[in-house]
Formats: sequence, C-alpha cells, structure tokens
Amino acid sequence: MNVGGEHYRTIWLKPGDDRVVQIIDQRPLPHAFVIEDLASSDAMARAIKEMHLRGAGLIGAAAGWGMYLAALEAPQASMEAFLGYLQAAGEKLKKTRPTAVNLEWAVDRQLREITGRARTPAEGVRVAHDTAQAIADEDAEFCRRIGEHGVKIIEEIYEKKGDTVHILTHCNAGWLAFVDYGTATAPMYEAQKRGIPIHVWVDETRPRNQGARLTAWELVQQGVPHTVVADNVGGHLMQHGLVDLVITGADRVTRCGDVANKIGTYLKALAAADNGVPFYVALPSSTLDWSICDGVAEIPIEQRGEEEVKYIQGLSDGEVKRVLLTPPESPAANYGFDVTPARLVKGLITERGIAAASEAGLLELYPERR
Amino acid sequence: MNVGGEHYRTIWLKPGDDRVVQIIDQRPLPHAFVIEDLASSDAMARAIKEMHLRGAGLIGAAAGWGMYLAALEAPQASMEAFLGYLQAAGEKLKKTRPTAVNLEWAVDRQLREITGRARTPAEGVRVAHDTAQAIADEDAEFCRRIGEHGVKIIEEIYEKKGDTVHILTHCNAGWLAFVDYGTATAPMYEAQKRGIPIHVWVDETRPRNQGARLTAWELVQQGVPHTVVADNVGGHLMQHGLVDLVITGADRVTRCGDVANKIGTYLKALAAADNGVPFYVALPSSTLDWSICDGVAEIPIEQRGEEEVKYIQGLSDGEVKRVLLTPPESPAANYGFDVTPARLVKGLITERGIAAASEAGLLELYPERR
Repeated sequence: MNVGGEHYRTIWLKPGDDRVVQIIDQRPLPHAFVIEDLASSDAMARAIKEMHLRGAGLIGAAAGWGMYLAALEAPQASMEAFLGYLQAAGEKLKKTRPTAVNLEWAVDRQLREITGRARTPAEGVRVAHDTAQAIADEDAEFCRRIGEHGVKIIEEIYEKKGDTVHILTHCNAGWLAFVDYGTATAPMYEAQKRGIPIHVWVDETRPRNQGARLTAWELVQQGVPHTVVADNVGGHLMQHGLVDLVITGADRVTRCGDVANKIGTYLKALAAADNGVPFYVALPSSTLDWSICDGVAEIPIEQRGEEEVKYIQGLSDGEVKRVLLTPPESPAANYGFDVTPARLVKGLITERGIAAASEAGLLELYPERR
Repeated sequence: MNVGGEHYRTIWLKPGDDRVVQIIDQRPLPHAFVIEDLASSDAMARAIKEMHLRGAGLIGAAAGWGMYLAALEAPQASMEAFLGYLQAAGEKLKKTRPTAVNLEWAVDRQLREITGRARTPAEGVRVAHDTAQAIADEDAEFCRRIGEHGVKIIEEIYEKKGDTVHILTHCNAGWLAFVDYGTATAPMYEAQKRGIPIHVWVDETRPRNQGARLTAWELVQQGVPHTVVADNVGGHLMQHGLVDLVITGADRVTRCGDVANKIGTYLKALAAADNGVPFYVALPSSTLDWSICDGVAEIPIEQRGEEEVKYIQGLSDGEVKRVLLTPPESPAANYGFDVTPARLVKGLITERGIAAASEAGLLELYPERR
C-alpha cells in the first residue's frame, strides 16, 4: 500500500543484499517512518517478540523469512546439523508470541518444505528462500481476495442505504499487520477503489494503540475518511445507529468459528449483537486452527508486561516520549487478546469467500479439512 | 478519605476565609496533589467545565458552593437584583456539563431555598452558605450509607466463596467524584473496614483515564489491593471467572433504571450479562432523573474536544507532559458517556437501600415520587 504516495510491503528482502530482510519498524509510527535491517534469525525473533512488527499475517511472513535467515546461518557441513539448527530456530521463533497461530504455521511449513525438497544445506537455503517468498506473496494475494469477497458486504449496505457506510474496526488488521492490503481493511480499500463512500471508526486499541497509531496512519496514507475513538465508544455509536458494520481481524480462529483477536474485540462483538449490527471477522486460512473448537477454553492468551499499560508513548515537542499514566505504586495486568464466541460473529471473510462462523460453515469453504 | 494518611474531603470552605472555596485540583493527579482556591462563581464554573473537579456528587456540591460564591458577588442593593444575579449564575453553572443531573439539582435547590427562606440579600448569602454546606454534608452521608448497603453484596459473595472478592469498576465513582467515600467505592471501603479481602480491577477509562489516574490513586491512598487494566480487558476477565461483581457509579439514572455513566460502562454491562456476573450501579438519589424513562433516547450525551483523545498527559522525567498519540491528520470523536439499559443492571445501590433497576423498584425506595 501507499506510504507518502510510494508503494510498500511490510517485509521484503533487501535490494542488493539477499542476506538481509527489511521491515517497517512499527514502533515509532505514526510519528516516524523507519525501515529496519534484520540480518539474523535472532534479530527476527527479537523483532517479533518486541513488536517491531506484529499482526497475524506479518508474523507468519516474518517467521518464514526468519527461517530463511536461520538457514543462512545454519552449519552447512551436514544435512543433519543443518536441519537440527533449523528445528531449534523454529522453536525459538514459535515461542516469541503464544497466541498467533500463523507463527507456528509458517515455521512448520518451512520445516516441511525444506525437509521434503532439499537434499543439501545449499538446496535448503534455496527452498527456505522460495518458501519465505511464497508465504509473503500468498499472504498478499489472500488479503487481496479477502478484499474482493468482503467488499460485497459493504456494497450491499451502500445499495440499501444510499449513503456513506460507517465501518468500525478494532486494533490494526490493516496492511501493516500483513504483507499488503490487510484483512479487515482489504474490503475498505476495495470499496474506496470502487467509489463507495465509507467512513471508518478506528478504535484506539489500548494498551498499545495499534488503532490510533497504525490503522489511523494507514487510512491517512490511503486517504480513507476515518475518526479515532477511545475503545469505550463503540457501544454508544452502535446504540445510536452510527455503525453499519464491524470488521476486525483475527489472531486465531478455531474450526468452530471462535475468534481470538486483540483484547477488547469481544466487547465490540457483544455491542454489535445487542444492536443488530453485523460483526464480521476477516482472515486468511493460515489463521485457522483446525485442531481446536472451544476458543475460550483452548486458546492460550498472551500476558505482556505491565509497563505497556502503565506507560504510553507519544510525540511531545517533536520527540517520541514515554509517559507514566498511573500511580507508580499501582500494578497493572496486560492480557493481549480475548476470544469472541462464534455465536457473536455474523461471518468469516476468507480468501475463498465468506463462511458462517461454524465448523459446518468453514468446512464448506475448506472441504479438504473434512 | 485519606491522602498521605490525612483526612480530606474534595471541597470545603477555606479555613480563615469564608469567601473562598477550596478543592483538590484533580487534573495533575496522580502525579501531584494540588489544592486550588476558587473565589468567584466564574472560577467555579470554569473549574467544573475544565474538570479541575468532576464526578456526579462533587459537581453537585461544587454547584452548591458556586451559588454561594455567586450570592457573595451579587448586587446587595435589592432582593430583585440579588435574585436576578443568582438566576443568571445558576444558568451559567448548569451549562458547564450537560449530562450530569446533580448540577441542575443543586442549582435549583439553592434557588428554591434562597427564594423561600431569605428576605434580604444578606440572609440570602447565609441561606446559600448553609445550603451549600448541607448539600456537601448530605452527599458525604449518602455515600456512607451507600457503603453500608452495598457491602452486603460483597459480604454475601465472600461468604459463598470464602476467598478474595474481585470487583471491577469503571471510571472514578470514588470519593474524588463525591465529597467523601464515593459511591462505587463506598462498599469497597466498607468491606475493607470489615476485614473482607477484596481486590479491585480498575478500568483505565480512556480518554481521560479517571480510573488509572484517580481510582488507582485513591486505592493506593487507602491501601486497597487493585490492578489497573485497559478498558478492553473486562470481558476477558469475566469470561475467565476473574470478576465476582461489577460496581460503577452513574451520572444520571432515569426513573426506569437506565444508567448514563462514563463512556464504556455499557460495554462492561454487556459482558457482565453475557457471563452471569452481577452488575450494580451505586448512586445517591440526587442522581435520579424522575422526569425521563428511556435513557438512550432522552439523556443528552456530552461531546468533548478531540484533543482529549488525540493527546494524553503523563509523567516523564518528573514533569507532567502531554503527548500526541495519533497521526496529526486524524480526526477524533469524544463522547463522554453512554447509557446502560436497565435490563443489564442487577440493582441500584442508593442511600436508602438496593433497588431493582426499574420504575417499580425505585418507587419502592422513593414512595414520595409516586
């Protein structure tokens, strides 16, 4: 998508140096646009864990490229040593963020491809490179298709209403969370392309403010009309008919349609149900976890440091500053995600189309999982 | 309540100068404890509007003292001119915050008392003084009684559970929002006094962070165990059995039991209903608006400036700094309150006891309103 009118993805191989992966460092956004070089699997693991990059799809792509960096640094003497190193690197990458399923998915895909297709470490490096590139390209392509399926929902509302369609979103399931297009945002960008007037309510998304910092920044860059609101506001907006549609992303969706997404998503889903507002979740199939059904009981919820709640960063006199919000003595808890039960989800927008949020609905689109 | 071990109220007549009202300026809390002198009704109106003080009961007490300051500065030549000035001052005070009903209630009570009991401006000043003091004392006494009624709910849960009672609260309906004790906090402080182990989940309460700044500070001062969480977290906590009870305050409650309170309250009430967690609202009867029933349709919701969403203040290097959170180009909306329908409220804790959130329930406690 656009940054200052230029096309970017969120992750790519450095032009002229294919031993280095480059990413947009999302931490200083929206106050500064910084590109970071990552030259080792350790650097990639740290970038994922410390959230230089984040978001379901991008974490998957980053893990893919992380495995390529691991292949470059692995012992090349024997296939056994090479694969042993990759196994360990994969474990390290998987451990960086426990809730996102794409991480596991990308690491396992790399290991499967390399084990299956490479006979030598040199071939392993090539397979790892091609697989990382394929994961990234697929992610972008799947997001593009999600946009094409999801835009139909927006079009339908517009045809009925004949006026601006107001869409609420939580956190950032934008292109910054993927390789390109995003998931929740893909239908919005597609609607914009087709000339449908939309306006996006952007949930701030405390504590890390991915909405106020990242989604708002994306929408500014693409010229999409939007308004930032505190996370508390969505229920009021829906009570007063100011939201036509909610679209969020997902970090993991069970085969029964339960949705783990950024903390607070569940509250918006409750408000949508209480006010008859359709609540959709957009995701590529890499986010589906076919191994579990009950999301509340079975999805591990990451707890992060309390300093992310107690402190916040923002711009003051041209400098990014970190300020303390609470009494220094007060402890804080920081649950990263919550689970929205399938009963609150009107539909899952995937690269193959829109599924009902249920095992039957998902199997209809993914019959190979039967 | 306690500040550094000393007893304070939130508003009082300055010792040795009864033409000046003193308040705790809540804006620099929790980073600095500042007492402010207010010597005119204009200064009081500004203090209310710019939220040097806030909270349903305290706004009422402040309006009461504001009318006393107005009586001091009113023309003393004729009763007609005196009352005319007070009428105008009352209008000015009422306009400072549109949602809180206590403001109107306190101004009207002052006008009624002064008109009814004073024959001269000098008597009017005396009546205004006594009425302001009575409003403040009553507010404190009502909150004390709310604590005595509300603690029974906590006691009952404790008896069943035999372990720490976890209470979630939103915004600040603590003593800083009233003259003393608070409403939502009064049962907690009473439970602490009775030796019942409690732990309070403190919603941060964006955009003005009254939870993270004020409720957390109060609980630190009183030594009540607590944890600050982002507003997004409550639903997850309730899904996992980590909340036994929700108690919030209210800015206006209709005769049918609909509750206007700080934006985001409705979302927590939805989560409580979805998880079978009892959701109580604590309020003195001055917060009841007997003139309306349907809160969503009839309560005006204050919209405040977008800078309260886009910027936040906190402590950095020992200084209170204001930082920008969003892209400078992104607009923000700032709705101050939402309405929780009575159907989501388990009970209203008032100074007379606990009422069902319905017209019948309220009339049982306030039969004089039949």
